[in-house]
Amino acid sequence: MRYGFGVDLGGTTVKIAYFDENGTLLTKWEIPTRTEQQGENILPDIAQSVLDFIRRENAQNIIGIGIGVPGPVSSDGVVNRCVNLGWGVFNVAQELTRLTGLPAVAGNDATVAALGECWKGSGKGCKNMLFATLGTGVGGGLIVGGHVLHGAYGAGGEIGHMILDPREPELSNCGKHGTVEQYCSATGIVRLAKKALSETDCPSSLRSESALTCKAVFDAAKAGDSLANQVLEQVYACLGLFLANVACVVNPEVIVLGGGVSKAGQMLLDGVRPHFAANVFHACSHVRFAIAELGNDAGAYGAFKLILEQAGV
Amino acid sequence: MRYGFGVDLGGTTVKIAYFDENGTLLTKWEIPTRTEQQGENILPDIAQSVLDFIRRENAQNIIGIGIGVPGPVSSDGVVNRCVNLGWGVFNVAQELTRLTGLPAVAGNDATVAALGECWKGSGKGCKNMLFATLGTGVGGGLIVGGHVLHGAYGAGGEIGHMILDPREPELSNCGKHGTVEQYCSATGIVRLAKKALSETDCPSSLRSESALTCKAVFDAAKAGDSLANQVLEQVYACLGLFLANVACVVNPEVIVLGGGVSKAGQMLLDGVRPHFAANVFHACSHVRFAIAELGNDAGAYGAFKLILEQAGV
Repeated sequence: MRYGFGVDLGGTTVKIAYFDENGTLLTKWEIPTRTEQQGENILPDIAQSVLDFIRRENAQNIIGIGIGVPGPVSSDGVVNRCVNLGWGVFNVAQELTRLTGLPAVAGNDATVAALGECWKGSGKGCKNMLFATLGTGVGGGLIVGGHVLHGAYGAGGEIGHMILDPREPELSNCGKHGTVEQYCSATGIVRLAKKALSETDCPSSLRSESALTCKAVFDAAKAGDSLANQVLEQVYACLGLFLANVACVVNPEVIVLGGGVSKAGQMLLDGVRPHFAANVFHACSHVRFAIAELGNDAGAYGAFKLILEQAGV
Repeated sequence: MRYGFGVDLGGTTVKIAYFDENGTLLTKWEIPTRTEQQGENILPDIAQSVLDFIRRENAQNIIGIGIGVPGPVSSDGVVNRCVNLGWGVFNVAQELTRLTGLPAVAGNDATVAALGECWKGSGKGCKNMLFATLGTGVGGGLIVGGHVLHGAYGAGGEIGHMILDPREPELSNCGKHGTVEQYCSATGIVRLAKKALSETDCPSSLRSESALTCKAVFDAAKAGDSLANQVLEQVYACLGLFLANVACVVNPEVIVLGGGVSKAGQMLLDGVRPHFAANVFHACSHVRFAIAELGNDAGAYGAFKLILEQAGV
C-alpha cells in the first residue's frame, strides 16, 4: 500500500490530510497560514509539517503531495497571483518538491474540491460535474469527461465572476456590476437582506439582529418571516439562472453545492430547482442537484487525487 | 496513406468531404437533406453517396466516416432529437456503420466545427478554444485540454441558449426570454434593428430596405448610418458580456467567431473586444479573438478528425 498527502491551503489555515492510495483519509491536522512577508513562510511551513509527520510516523511508500491553492494555477503548477496569500507568480509544485524531496502537484482550490467531491463525495461516479461553493465568495470547479477543467491559464470554473445583471448599481469586490457573487454568496445574501430591510418598512425578525448573517436569513425564512423569504426567493432566482447558464456551457450530470450557504441543505435545493428548470435549455435540463458531502475535507481529498493521477495510480 | 470521410449534416444540404490522414481535403460534394418521413432517408442517402464514391474512385485504406449532426449527441453516438431533421433518439454512428460497413462516429455539428477550427483553422495549436457560430441561431463548441467538451448528454456548448436578459419582453424560439440568440444571431440583429426603426423616427438608410438583413445592418453602419451603429453597439455589448461569461467558465486561449455574422470580420472583432474586456474576470482576460477560417468546411474537417481520433491515428 502507498500513501500520500492532500493539502488545502486557505487564507487563515492549512488543512493537511494523510491518505492511503484507496483514498481513505487516515489522519488530518491544521496549521496556521502565515501570510506576512508576501506569504514566504507558507510553503516552508507545510513542508516542515509534512516532513515532521513522515519522520514521527516513520511513514513509507509516499507517493507525494497534492495541494489546492486559492488562485488560478496552470496545468504545469504555476500560480498566477493569490491575493489572499500575498503570492505573485511562481511554480508551487516545483517549490514544494524542492522543499520536501517529494513529487508534488498543485491546483486551484475550488477545482480541487470539485475533484474531491467527484471522487469520494456527492459526485461519485459522475464524469461531468459542476461544483459551486457558495461561501464568502462564489467559487467553482468543473469536471468534464472525467477530468478537471483547468482552462488555458488555470482560471477555468471562475463562475462566481460571471455577470448576472449588468444594471446592478452596486460594485462587486472585483470592480464589476452584477456578478454572481453579489447575489449568491453568503456576503451577497446578507447584502440583499440589508437592502430589503432599508428599502421597506415590512416587519421582520431580521430587524433585531445586531450583526446580520446569512444563516439568520435562512433561519428567519424557515420561521416564516416574509421579508426573509422574499430575499431568498430573489437569491434562488439568481442562483437558478446562473446555474442554468453554466449548465448550457458544460452540460453537467450533477450540480453539487458547497460552502457555507449550502448548510441550508434541502431548503436551498428546493428553492433553486424550479428556477433552474425555468431557465435551462431543454437538452441540458437532466441534472441531479446535491449538497456537498465532504465539507471542509473536499479540498484535501481532491488534492490527494491530483497527486494520485499524476503518479498514474 | 489512409483516407476517410467528414460529413456535415445540415437541415437543407449534406456536405461530404474526402480527406487523407494528414487532414488534406482532397475533394468535396453536397447532396440534399431529405427531411420528409422523419428524415428516414438521410443516413441511407449519405451511405449511398459515400459507397458510390468509393466504388467509382476505387478508394482503399478507408479509416471510416465522421459526421456532425444538428442536435445533441452523447459520446456513444446517440442523438437526442434533431428537430430540423425530424429525428428522434437513436444511435447515428451505429446506423451509419450498419449501412456502410465502415467505422463511424458522430458529434454535434457546432462541436465538430469547433474541433475542425482547432485542428486546421483559427484555433490551430490551441488546447482551449471557444468557438461560437453566429448564424440563424447561435451555436457553440468547446475544446478543453485538447479535447471536445461533449457534456453528460452531448449538449455541451449550447451557449446560444444562455440567458442574457431575463427582463426581455419578447420570446426566443425555445420559449425563453432574453437568450443569447435573441441579440447575437443574424436573426437577433435584424430583430434589434427592426425594433430600433419602429421605436424611433431617426433617419436611417435601413428604412428603405424591403427585406432587412443582418448584412444590410453592417453595411449601413460601415457607411456611417447612426441608427445601424447604435444597433450594432447593442449587439457588441451583448456579445461581449456573453463571451466574457463563457470565458469565466472555461478560460479559453482563443475565441473563434464563425457563422454568417462573422463575415463582418475585423469590424465585429473590434466592436466586441472592449465589451469583453469590460466584463471578463481578470484571470480569464488573456484571450485572442479570431474569425473562423474554414468557413463551411469546418464541420467536415472536424467530423473527419473525430474518426481519426477514434481510430487512434
